[in-house]
Amino acid sequence: MNGDVVEVVLRGPASPLPADRTPVVVTFAADDRSVAVPGFWDGDDRYVARFRPERAGTWAWTSASDAPELDGLTGRVDAAEPTGHGGVRVAATRHFAHADGTPFRPVGATVYNWLHQDEPLFAETVYAVAAAGLNKLRFQVFPQAGGHVEHDPRLLPFERDADGRWDVARPVIAFFRRLDDAVLRLRAAGVQAEVLIFTAYDDGRFGLGDLTEEQDAAYLRYLVARLSAYDNVWWSLCNEFDLLPRPTERWTRMGELLAAVDPHDRLRSIHQWTRFYDHNLPWVTHASIQNGQAVAELGRAAAYRDAYAKPVVFDEILYEGDEPERWGHLSARELVHRFWVATVEGCYATHGESYVLSNGSLHIVQGGPYRGESPVRLGFLRGILDELRVPGLDPIDHFWDEAFVAGRARQVYLQYLGRSALSEWTFRLPQGNAGERLEVGDRFLVEVIDTWGMSVTSAGEFVLDDVRRNDAYATGSAPVPLPAGRALALRITRQR
Amino acid sequence: MNGDVVEVVLRGPASPLPADRTPVVVTFAADDRSVAVPGFWDGDDRYVARFRPERAGTWAWTSASDAPELDGLTGRVDAAEPTGHGGVRVAATRHFAHADGTPFRPVGATVYNWLHQDEPLFAETVYAVAAAGLNKLRFQVFPQAGGHVEHDPRLLPFERDADGRWDVARPVIAFFRRLDDAVLRLRAAGVQAEVLIFTAYDDGRFGLGDLTEEQDAAYLRYLVARLSAYDNVWWSLCNEFDLLPRPTERWTRMGELLAAVDPHDRLRSIHQWTRFYDHNLPWVTHASIQNGQAVAELGRAAAYRDAYAKPVVFDEILYEGDEPERWGHLSARELVHRFWVATVEGCYATHGESYVLSNGSLHIVQGGPYRGESPVRLGFLRGILDELRVPGLDPIDHFWDEAFVAGRARQVYLQYLGRSALSEWTFRLPQGNAGERLEVGDRFLVEVIDTWGMSVTSAGEFVLDDVRRNDAYATGSAPVPLPAGRALALRITRQR
Repeated sequence: MNGDVVEVVLRGPASPLPADRTPVVVTFAADDRSVAVPGFWDGDDRYVARFRPERAGTWAWTSASDAPELDGLTGRVDAAEPTGHGGVRVAATRHFAHADGTPFRPVGATVYNWLHQDEPLFAETVYAVAAAGLNKLRFQVFPQAGGHVEHDPRLLPFERDADGRWDVARPVIAFFRRLDDAVLRLRAAGVQAEVLIFTAYDDGRFGLGDLTEEQDAAYLRYLVARLSAYDNVWWSLCNEFDLLPRPTERWTRMGELLAAVDPHDRLRSIHQWTRFYDHNLPWVTHASIQNGQAVAELGRAAAYRDAYAKPVVFDEILYEGDEPERWGHLSARELVHRFWVATVEGCYATHGESYVLSNGSLHIVQGGPYRGESPVRLGFLRGILDELRVPGLDPIDHFWDEAFVAGRARQVYLQYLGRSALSEWTFRLPQGNAGERLEVGDRFLVEVIDTWGMSVTSAGEFVLDDVRRNDAYATGSAPVPLPAGRALALRITRQR
Repeated sequence: MNGDVVEVVLRGPASPLPADRTPVVVTFAADDRSVAVPGFWDGDDRYVARFRPERAGTWAWTSASDAPELDGLTGRVDAAEPTGHGGVRVAATRHFAHADGTPFRPVGATVYNWLHQDEPLFAETVYAVAAAGLNKLRFQVFPQAGGHVEHDPRLLPFERDADGRWDVARPVIAFFRRLDDAVLRLRAAGVQAEVLIFTAYDDGRFGLGDLTEEQDAAYLRYLVARLSAYDNVWWSLCNEFDLLPRPTERWTRMGELLAAVDPHDRLRSIHQWTRFYDHNLPWVTHASIQNGQAVAELGRAAAYRDAYAKPVVFDEILYEGDEPERWGHLSARELVHRFWVATVEGCYATHGESYVLSNGSLHIVQGGPYRGESPVRLGFLRGILDELRVPGLDPIDHFWDEAFVAGRARQVYLQYLGRSALSEWTFRLPQGNAGERLEVGDRFLVEVIDTWGMSVTSAGEFVLDDVRRNDAYATGSAPVPLPAGRALALRITRQR
């Protein structure tokens, strides 16, 4: 299980090089392409450079290092045809696609302290996430402290110096090999690994939230050298970054460093508590936002899309559960509702579960099987999204139209009728921009989606016979009868 | 009427200098302060530099120019004590205040083609705006073309060259003196002059929307040299900038030029149609946004405040009137509602009126007396805002709290109950952040504001007796009876 990654293993000094530099850079070259990949120390005298080629072929490599043993080495390595669709990139401005062009619609999961759990929890989490149909997992590299966390991890990321302080120049290899394995397990399960690099939840317990900026940078370089070749990696600089008393500029420097040192250019963002980060900055590839209110009702979330011409992912919209704190006891129906709101606002969202477990912990902390009723319905939503043959759903005429229909004009539309639909729906579509305008005679298949019941029912075809400046109607067709009171959506697909 | 402006008038070459440079720079110095002010050609051999000192005193000045007649001149000039509060600046991150610290709450008006109207319309507009209590007027320098505009302006801004093309090196002095006068008239009426510098509404009629970037820059320099000393000037680079087929980078270059050449550093923004400008860029002082939907319901607009850590002004939320297009027939009640929504979202808004006049025009085009019922009620709102003794209203706990209360925690709160209030309101306030937390025994005066009826009625004092983690109650007091069905707000003021 190598995740389509090519590795070059070298022998060098039997202790790590200074933390403030990359021990070796290996440049891979084939045809007209050349990629310089930072290597990393992997214990004893072992140094590794990992590279994810985009296609099969033979790559010549050359090493460069301050250490003579690691410098000027050359070789050739054969890459097999990649097995997956490749890393996820931003596509169509506010959406995502794999390197091969296949759209990717994140329907994410959150288990902050997953990496630090023992078996069987560790494996059960991957199974639960994948079985529900969720396709991204947010988790911390550093262990969590604080409420609901009784767990003492067996492995920590660094050795300590003689004074008991963290020595980021000496990573604990067993810790990071476990992290490699964690990312590859998610990859095998078809799940993106959203790596939360720094922590705001240390509370002084492990001392990993108080590293200096230089220590943070050394760790970041190591982490990127180690993981970025895995094509399911996403980077999140921190969860709730503004909980930490640090100037925003420090986060910006760290984000810019991340962008500069990652040869695979994986997705990058940062997640806030109450003070927003400027997601318009160039190092940020997509906006990762905490704001449950923004997806509680239609008409709110798209404002973030307006402000950030990038994908918007709501990576925290409250959790399904029974935790008494107000972030922790959303009903499953309400959480599913919020995902559908996010969807028709042209955004994406992430799940978390917070039923209080017998040991006092929560699923968002330790993982394991899901107890809630929302995950399978979010998997159903993901299926609906995966069936779309368009790059993504964009709000249509959203500064004006109060139906909040999303889609690609004149191709396919999704309309969400809210928590409790009325007893019928009369066919109507908002107009798109010039060049995409609806015309008399356009035919559409209407399907009624029960977002909770997880069914899709055809309501037949509709032909436009009344096309106006701002919207279009099929007056020759009767209204669509609906099971009133249910949380319904409509999929409206052009027929050719 | 000089608007607290000091002028230095010089004699120089009897025709304008090349358009791509400033003809003379006059540096004013007093005590430890020195300000270099670009001068401008004012016809014949007359060159003027205008400067707005912040306090009374004697300023020594020196000129510098490529033209020998204008270079190396010196003098002294006495500035009287300024008569007003000084120019408006950003204050408290997302609000505004005058130079002397007096808060300024924009409740704006819009008359795009005002500058190009004859009397009595020209004067009537100023009177109508000021009499209604509106305190900012958005208007174009360049004349409007297009629907509802039958007007041929008597004056245009530039002379034409031998081939009939605009010669931006030769401004029409009578045009710009009229513009000076327009700004000063607004100042005398207590109205901020929001100058729309470039135009997206030329439609090829005057050819002023097709100037080259160099011509735009020459005009911008001239305009800034001429107007920026007037302390009621705000700059708006363009209304609906994205209607023009120009790369965004050109707007950014022009905005950065504006920031660089304005010695008085007046407020700067740009207003969009459907594609947002990145208001996080440093040259932008506040976000000027068109989006009527964002203030139609509570819970939407504050997202723009999250994304932009700057004041947010909704400079177009549809107009009160009877124009059949969907931007033109908002009811007065709905427009007043939207202003109150903007207010409790911590934002500001701008009015416009579009009843179709007997000549086919609209108030937003030509101005004149108001016919609508909203302006006086917006003046009432402005009065409420002016009574606040805090820098501005910020949403309290808006990622969570569904009451959408704005204010300054533990000082004063404004809550808006929507288009149609229920028959009673039970006292409840959301908690603020640490250091501003409500405590048992805190006393508050509650006043019921009828936003349409323009009345403020005391509902008595309430004492907190049940303070929780996220909100606080006065369970010892009965609910406040309300005139159900009216558009009401509550002002809740801490008593000491």
